[in-house]
Parts: sequence; C-alpha cells; structure tokens
Amino acid sequence: MIRVVLIGGGNLATHLATAFAFNEQVTLVQVYNRTLASIKHLSTFCATTDKIEEIEQADVTIISVSDAAIVEIANRLNTNNGLLVHTSGSMSIDALKSNTRAGVLYPIQSFTKGKEISFKNIPVCIEAKESIDLVLLEKLAAAISDNVYSMNSNQRKKVHIAAVFVNNFANHLYTIGEDICVENQIPFEVLFPIIEETAAKIKSIPPKKAQTGPASRKDLNTLALHTQELNKSQKEIYTLLSNAIIKNI
Amino acid sequence: MIRVVLIGGGNLATHLATAFAFNEQVTLVQVYNRTLASIKHLSTFCATTDKIEEIEQADVTIISVSDAAIVEIANRLNTNNGLLVHTSGSMSIDALKSNTRAGVLYPIQSFTKGKEISFKNIPVCIEAKESIDLVLLEKLAAAISDNVYSMNSNQRKKVHIAAVFVNNFANHLYTIGEDICVENQIPFEVLFPIIEETAAKIKSIPPKKAQTGPASRKDLNTLALHTQELNKSQKEIYTLLSNAIIKNI
Repeated sequence: MIRVVLIGGGNLATHLATAFAFNEQVTLVQVYNRTLASIKHLSTFCATTDKIEEIEQADVTIISVSDAAIVEIANRLNTNNGLLVHTSGSMSIDALKSNTRAGVLYPIQSFTKGKEISFKNIPVCIEAKESIDLVLLEKLAAAISDNVYSMNSNQRKKVHIAAVFVNNFANHLYTIGEDICVENQIPFEVLFPIIEETAAKIKSIPPKKAQTGPASRKDLNTLALHTQELNKSQKEIYTLLSNAIIKNI
Repeated sequence: MIRVVLIGGGNLATHLATAFAFNEQVTLVQVYNRTLASIKHLSTFCATTDKIEEIEQADVTIISVSDAAIVEIANRLNTNNGLLVHTSGSMSIDALKSNTRAGVLYPIQSFTKGKEISFKNIPVCIEAKESIDLVLLEKLAAAISDNVYSMNSNQRKKVHIAAVFVNNFANHLYTIGEDICVENQIPFEVLFPIIEETAAKIKSIPPKKAQTGPASRKDLNTLALHTQELNKSQKEIYTLLSNAIIKNI
C-alpha cells in the first residue's frame, strides 16, 4: 500500500483524491486545503485539514495547487524523508528543489468539477530526481491509470503546450461554432457528430493527412465569402487559421 | 422506392452512393462522373456512366460535385420533371434556378476516402423550393439518417462556416499538437484522451462554460512562457486564440 497525502482542493486534486480513495493499492491518508469548505465532500472517505502543521507523513505527498503557489507550499511542508511531487504540466521538477526526494505526476486531461471521468485511460506523465522514486511514482500512477509515461520537465512543458492547442483552443472553436448556430436559430447539436468524428479520426489518420475544407483546397472564393459572414474576432481567427492550413499543404 | 441518380465521384458522392445502394427504401439507378475511373468501384452495385447524355431519369437527381461545377452541371442536365438537388453547404438553392423542382441535401460531416462512416447519426440538412419536394427529400434523407433538419440556404451557409471552425480548424490545432509532440520525442497518442474528452464534453456542458486553461484564468505569466517555446506561426495562433478566450470570459 502506498500512503498518499494530497494538498489542494481544485479540480485535479478532487479527481485525484477520488481516484486514490477507492484504489486498493493506495491509502489516501489525508487531504489538506487552506479552506476546508472546498474539500468538505472528501471528508466522508479520508481525513481533511486546513492546518498545514497538521499534515501527516506519507510515502508520497502530492501538491496539486496552482502553479504560482507550488514553491511556497513546498517550502512550508515537512515531508521528512517522504517523496514530494507536484502535478503541474508547466512547472519544472526544480520547483521542488528544497526537497531531495522530488517528483512530478501530471495527468494529461482537462478536469471539470462535477464531470466524472475515469483515470484508467488518462495518460499520466511521471518524473523523479532519483530512479528509486521513479519506480515508486510509476507504481502509484499505474494504480490509477493504464497509460503511464516517463517524461522529463522539458517534454512535459511541451506536451502541456500541445494540450492547450488541442483542448483549450479547440474548445474555443466549439464556442464560436455554438455562437454561429445560436445567432442563426440552428440547434448546436447539429455539430456534435462532426466534432466527434474529427476528434476520433486522428486515431486512424494523422491530422495533417485528414485536413479537409476550403483552405486545404485553396478555395479562395469560399474563403472570401465566409469571412464576409463573420464578426471581427471570428474573421481574424478564420483568416489566420486558413492561412496556416494553406501554408501547411 | 425512391429512384436516385447521383452525379459525382468525390468523397461525399461515394459515401452517398454506398448509403443509397444498400438502403431498402432507395434504388440507386445510376452514378455519373466525367471520369469512370473514380466510380469504377461502384459499378458492382449500380450502373455507372461518364456520358452526360446517358444519364437516366429518376425521382431525385443528386449533384454532388465541387461548388464551382454545380451550375454548369445543372444547366446541362435534362431531369424532365424530376427533383434536382445539390449537396453543398455553401451554395444557395438558387444555384439550381433553371429547374422548377430544386432542393438541397447537405450532410454535416467531413468525409475521408477509405474511412467508413455510418450515415445514421449524421445530421442531414434539407431544403426544397416546393413543399411537396421537401416531403420527398425528408423521406430520402430519413432513409439514411436519423437526424434530418429542414434549413434555409442562409442557415445552411452559416452551419457550414461553423463546421469549418469545429472541424477544419480544430483539425489544424491537432496538427500543431502532433508537430509539437514529434519535435519533442513524445508519442502523439498521449493527446488522444484529452482530444476525445474535449469533443465529448460539449454534449453535457456548453463549450463556453467548459473553457479551461491559462487564457481562461488570465494567467499571463504562463501565456508569456508558452509563446517563447513556439515557432512564428504557432505563436500567432496561440496569441490570437488566447486573446479571444480572454475577451470571451
């Protein structure tokens, strides 16, 4: 059994707490957050505290807070000889430089409060200063996920940026799609199948090869007609992405 | 039985031919294309021709060719008293103005040759000049799809533009994601689950509400760090989309 203490009350911390709490290879000893209110719902299956001096010792202490708060929390913790890890995509393992036993456990997924998601298929990137800790982290990550990847801090930073493109930015394109539908009394659901198929297709065809549409056909007439129908912000995005697709043909 | 003749040999025409050929409510009489080679594989289940004067009469003649070729083909056809429809998202029903019985049948999906896809869940937008033809088109569309929407030419044009955002542009973001992975020796498959979850999430949470990431948190520090890691084209897209998300908060 791997004894885990979790620091944080945000989306990722909450999803991790739930995944660990119901896992047979892990004991979730305690969850800390500076306000108890946001972790109150976790108190039915583990100890909770808002006092940093009451944080218990564990095999792995996981800091799952905003990037800006990681260093400060790490410096205030007394993990004795336990392994301290953070869960950030952007931050280097060196953010935990005050600890000799340091690591990272970064799941590549976007978590939304109240939206259940199984960890089984979520890729988890792990890194550790010492190889013995990498083995421990691999065991912990494999307890909740079938897809564990060992990655250095630079690779993790890059994969996080790639995730911003395919997740945050793709979602903004969906928002524009919904806006256009709503403005024209079209139910947004008409776009669900094409959105799903576009996302599913990359598993069998590389996206560059799967590219379709007026820009990939260099159909300048349609591009010009489309931009006439868009507002300023939409037009800028339409033009920039169309030009990027044309350059990439 | 609805007797159908299909004009065209591209991706959509091929997928439509297959859907009609194996449907009990439809008889696919014939497929025409100016080169026989691209419709040769259809000849096992229907008549094919490359001679426009040999095109047979049908209840519905479907022109499924590039937008630029629709008017010319329509003017050369003799459909007698049959219904003539095109399958374009962008083009108005008036592209078929020489025909008294005219309509549109536009499936909202991106078709890739060799990638099988079931029409059952694909939204099909229909429009007809005459209400009796709308009934016929509805019957034809419902034979292959469970999601048939009556839409005017302006709505269809708008939904086509929305599809460019959520399909063509989202796919280009996937291409950037793959590029970043490849450059950093990261398997692209690590992004599959977040891509799928982002696409699936819109069914339960409106995309504007589901927006996450550094831009939606106004985390200017992370935005600045990320842009340092990108090439010129990626940086332009990152900055424009981040600013659009910030404005949309």
